[in-house]
Amino acid sequence: MATHPFDPIRPDEVSLAAKILQASFPGVSLRFKVIDVQEPIKRDVVPYLEAERLGTPLPAKPARIIQSLFHRLDTNAFLKALVNLDTKAVITVKELPKGVQGPADVDEIIEIEQLCLKHPAVLAEIEKLKLPPGVTVLNDPWIYGTDDENETRRLFQCYMYIAETNHAQANHYSLPLPFSPVFDCLTHELVRMDRLPTGTDHSTAQASPWKPVKAVEYAHDLLKEPLRTDLKPYIVQQPEGASFSVNGNKVHWQKWDFRIGFNSREGLILYGITYDKRNVFYRLSVNEMTVPYGDPRAPYHRKQAFDAGDVGFGITANTLSLGCDCLGHIKYFNGCRTDSKGNPVTLENVVCLHEQDAGLQHKHTNYRTNDATVVRNRQLLVQIICTVSNYEYIFAWIFDQAGGIELEVRATGILSTMPIDNADGATVPWGTNVGPGVMAAFHQHIFSMRIDPSIDGYDNTVIYQDSVPMPDDPVTNPYGVGYVTETTVLNKSGTADTSVEKHRVFKIRNDNVINPISRKPVAYKLQSLPSQMMLMSPRSFNRKRAQFATKPIWVTKYQDGELYAAGEFTNQSKKSSGVEEWTRRNDNTENTDVVLWHSFGLTHNPRPEDFPIMPVERISIMLKPDGFFEKNPALDVPPSNQAFNRSQLHEDGKAKGAPVPSCPCPATTTAKL
Amino acid sequence: MATHPFDPIRPDEVSLAAKILQASFPGVSLRFKVIDVQEPIKRDVVPYLEAERLGTPLPAKPARIIQSLFHRLDTNAFLKALVNLDTKAVITVKELPKGVQGPADVDEIIEIEQLCLKHPAVLAEIEKLKLPPGVTVLNDPWIYGTDDENETRRLFQCYMYIAETNHAQANHYSLPLPFSPVFDCLTHELVRMDRLPTGTDHSTAQASPWKPVKAVEYAHDLLKEPLRTDLKPYIVQQPEGASFSVNGNKVHWQKWDFRIGFNSREGLILYGITYDKRNVFYRLSVNEMTVPYGDPRAPYHRKQAFDAGDVGFGITANTLSLGCDCLGHIKYFNGCRTDSKGNPVTLENVVCLHEQDAGLQHKHTNYRTNDATVVRNRQLLVQIICTVSNYEYIFAWIFDQAGGIELEVRATGILSTMPIDNADGATVPWGTNVGPGVMAAFHQHIFSMRIDPSIDGYDNTVIYQDSVPMPDDPVTNPYGVGYVTETTVLNKSGTADTSVEKHRVFKIRNDNVINPISRKPVAYKLQSLPSQMMLMSPRSFNRKRAQFATKPIWVTKYQDGELYAAGEFTNQSKKSSGVEEWTRRNDNTENTDVVLWHSFGLTHNPRPEDFPIMPVERISIMLKPDGFFEKNPALDVPPSNQAFNRSQLHEDGKAKGAPVPSCPCPATTTAKL
Repeated sequence: MATHPFDPIRPDEVSLAAKILQASFPGVSLRFKVIDVQEPIKRDVVPYLEAERLGTPLPAKPARIIQSLFHRLDTNAFLKALVNLDTKAVITVKELPKGVQGPADVDEIIEIEQLCLKHPAVLAEIEKLKLPPGVTVLNDPWIYGTDDENETRRLFQCYMYIAETNHAQANHYSLPLPFSPVFDCLTHELVRMDRLPTGTDHSTAQASPWKPVKAVEYAHDLLKEPLRTDLKPYIVQQPEGASFSVNGNKVHWQKWDFRIGFNSREGLILYGITYDKRNVFYRLSVNEMTVPYGDPRAPYHRKQAFDAGDVGFGITANTLSLGCDCLGHIKYFNGCRTDSKGNPVTLENVVCLHEQDAGLQHKHTNYRTNDATVVRNRQLLVQIICTVSNYEYIFAWIFDQAGGIELEVRATGILSTMPIDNADGATVPWGTNVGPGVMAAFHQHIFSMRIDPSIDGYDNTVIYQDSVPMPDDPVTNPYGVGYVTETTVLNKSGTADTSVEKHRVFKIRNDNVINPISRKPVAYKLQSLPSQMMLMSPRSFNRKRAQFATKPIWVTKYQDGELYAAGEFTNQSKKSSGVEEWTRRNDNTENTDVVLWHSFGLTHNPRPEDFPIMPVERISIMLKPDGFFEKNPALDVPPSNQAFNRSQLHEDGKAKGAPVPSCPCPATTTAKL
Repeated sequence: MATHPFDPIRPDEVSLAAKILQASFPGVSLRFKVIDVQEPIKRDVVPYLEAERLGTPLPAKPARIIQSLFHRLDTNAFLKALVNLDTKAVITVKELPKGVQGPADVDEIIEIEQLCLKHPAVLAEIEKLKLPPGVTVLNDPWIYGTDDENETRRLFQCYMYIAETNHAQANHYSLPLPFSPVFDCLTHELVRMDRLPTGTDHSTAQASPWKPVKAVEYAHDLLKEPLRTDLKPYIVQQPEGASFSVNGNKVHWQKWDFRIGFNSREGLILYGITYDKRNVFYRLSVNEMTVPYGDPRAPYHRKQAFDAGDVGFGITANTLSLGCDCLGHIKYFNGCRTDSKGNPVTLENVVCLHEQDAGLQHKHTNYRTNDATVVRNRQLLVQIICTVSNYEYIFAWIFDQAGGIELEVRATGILSTMPIDNADGATVPWGTNVGPGVMAAFHQHIFSMRIDPSIDGYDNTVIYQDSVPMPDDPVTNPYGVGYVTETTVLNKSGTADTSVEKHRVFKIRNDNVINPISRKPVAYKLQSLPSQMMLMSPRSFNRKRAQFATKPIWVTKYQDGELYAAGEFTNQSKKSSGVEEWTRRNDNTENTDVVLWHSFGLTHNPRPEDFPIMPVERISIMLKPDGFFEKNPALDVPPSNQAFNRSQLHEDGKAKGAPVPSCPCPATTTAKL
């Protein structure tokens, strides 16, 4: 199948790009970090997309450009190159300034982990713990959040833990150790041995023997309590198959068409979304995320991961398995990354696609006749699950039949933990004790959602509307009940706040297309998630590095290459260079190609119930048509009935379900009025 | 089966109560409005519940008390009586003050509707419309929102519509007429013929011939467009039956025990909720709701329904049907109401109970070994669907396996509409044109959720916690990253605001029980829904009548009889007499029997897409354990695997699902790190 401009990189493309790059550095060993598709130039893609949408002859396809980040092993220089795969030529190579760090890569993390465990200084510390037999020490290498304007080395901070057993899922996060070595990952030097505070203040102590406590385990076969035996199977059957069809990475479902993209940084991307052949969105993604921790003590002030920019939702995406992660009739998609030698690594089944039933979509009963119209809410879900060390994030884009697209984010996995003295009931005001000797600090997860709209075309405008009382006036508002909306047009690049008090709604509209029913421009609204923004001080590196996390709404004029809210290089960054820079251009953003960025998140002050694995915390953003259609676009979804749905009636005291009636269900009725 | 104190009223109890009451008014005809269970006295029920919970000998059961509201047809007096069904005696009868109106009842609404359609003044108005043959005029009798301090008559305002066909689901809301008669429903007199403004200001015109426009229909067989043909069946099978068990109205599921209550006003009530035999909540319900409209013009200023207090979520609950409203293995419960003669009317299948799968509950992958623990999120849902004239509300209480209870509210049904001149593109700033000649005014839906907690006992305290930065201090917060929570104890009855900016979290805690892990009192948190409160002016009747809708959080000390946030009698009320009165007592609310009331809602500025039936607008409140358990209580839920879940793999280009593999799925893995 011919490559589409939005297709993710293929294994053969990784190999070819690596070969082309390696050939342009004869005699020099390269260590690859990223080989991935370069986001295609929008003005080259749009004519191609429009021809596809309208069924007109296709223009020439944009060139297939690959980007790569790599180190020269002779000089340790860090470089970025673009390669044209069609012409097999290197387009540009540029050496990045000293101090600019690329993201962590898979081989590097394993390397640091092993380096740490073998280092004499670490072994000496372990010796002092006088550990009982049978336990194991391991470590999680952490991205080194910045605290020094002049630091240019590539650093990792290793947090040390004990695993109580050699079980593959022993919960080492339950048993954190009070020392933490820092390594230079290019020279492999030990930079410093940090000691962790374990009391209620900033003080640290020298190593002393470990005082054993029991780990709080999560693996089913490590639990002391028996498993529940009263959960009965719940099986989703789609005997006629799925309602979607897939061609390569192109998906069609219920009037929706779109393409599934995938890269190592954002993981899942949605491209070229149309409904009933009308343009809706050019590109949607979760482009960045930062997790700053609220423990004020060193070295925890450096705990600030940028999970997309520092690591990548693509390279951490889980291989999903049938019947475990997803229920029903499932289509999987692969991804691909490079290893450090430029070999392709297939990421199997990292994206899943399936339908789900989400209760009712609409219902009305005429109380006079008891006749009801009932339509169920079938949805299509595209999902990835990422494991970033201890935490898991589940990202799902959910399409519905009424023109809505939901971004659902679930946080699960294991809290990042710190040791705390178990004696004399120590607690700290910036964290929660979640087990014996283990504390989980307060932290925030702040995500950035990038919305590149194409509401009936590429010239769009972002506005917001507040619901405000009409002035109290004897003529225009005699009873004091009137309220109206007040519209603000974001006609220059900039930011805006959410407002629950004013029921502020953000809309993306196309001023060139008027809805004949509402007599207003066609629009989609963003049902935003008003969230607490970053709590850290303006003088903190955490805040300087993540300006996107200080405001919920950013509007920029589209420019190629402006994809990531905190900038291209976040790892050990001293400050961000993303939306806060782009909005400062003061561009016109009215009736032009605009991008809407929504920052939202979770302030997560852990509960004991979040340990040892956290029940999902679910948050959601909706994009909904608002005057895009002339009426509810889901009216033509067939009615919900028993012939189609085949439910079972429960009879008390019977263990088995009743036989499935095959007759259509009676008209749904309301209690007779 | 013996009656439990929390059991809803039964048909024989309605008949018996009516008989006892009628006998105490010899020679007088009574017109019954309500015959329902009187909420039992809490201090009498608690010892009974505790004995049930602990398995100790049961004390005497509280007396079975029935309440009734009725009119004497000789004097038209409105009375309230309590009847002891055990002793078959009337306990009290009291005549309510003139001007106090009970809720609308089913027989009354039908009576007014028919009265209206036969009234000569209405027929004269219809005559002036010079309607084409084949169309029908009908009306929705509306609760008469107050605008006169001295009004004491029982009034209904009828909104008039045209149905284009005689189809049982013709959408008359698409064709509103510009006149609206007001009737006294006791004397049957026409009080006034209101004319509706149809332009962009307050002016009204005399009747003129109707200018035909086409209705926007929703019924499947009235649609012009063909139905979708590409939606494939999605069948939920529970071959071993449900995981819940039901005994009368008592439900057991996955460590949860509770009782399903039902009354004509609140509809669904949950009682005596325990998890693993620990007390959690005594009583949960949606107790009130108000819908004020933002159109400033008469008579729309009187459009302010109290859907619970003025009508009742119980009497408007839909009879649900298998495979239409609910999917899977379903248990239904009946309710019961009285008719105007005191005869019982069974409300069949008004409550449904079933399980659902809500994606993943928790997951963690150890990136070193690729071993994953995956647990799905099975939930138990208890649901009612209410049709209040044009609108539908779906209320679902959702229990999960990790100690959480969600209240999910979905708004659907048909917008309340107004006529608008279809010529010259008229639009109004307080509404949206949703079809030719039809406008839907902005409005709010503000709900009250009543939470009567029993967190490990009946003495509880409501607090809130804000997440706030630590002061910038070189010793305690040297890097500017520290943040902590600040706790406010609501130790006196009163109100509080939500705060997104501070990530304010409300908790109900038991200061007498300390969690040994967190070393803090056990608690549940309320994941509130910060919402815009009522927009209407303080001088408006709308606001005076619904003080509960002006603040999101109210805390009262428990008193018997304080169940409804806007007071017992809302219909045509001049002012509310609910939470705002009870909080003024300035009661101690620390470590005592408290009630937490949460007001939340939707500011609904209609979209064209909300017509002719509105796709569900979903909102949700969570009650989650927060230091109630020592760790994630769902760890013992068995792992998710293919042997249990039996999913199907999608193969491109195949219409049918692949055969279901019967082997257990492989360990879920992450892309190898």
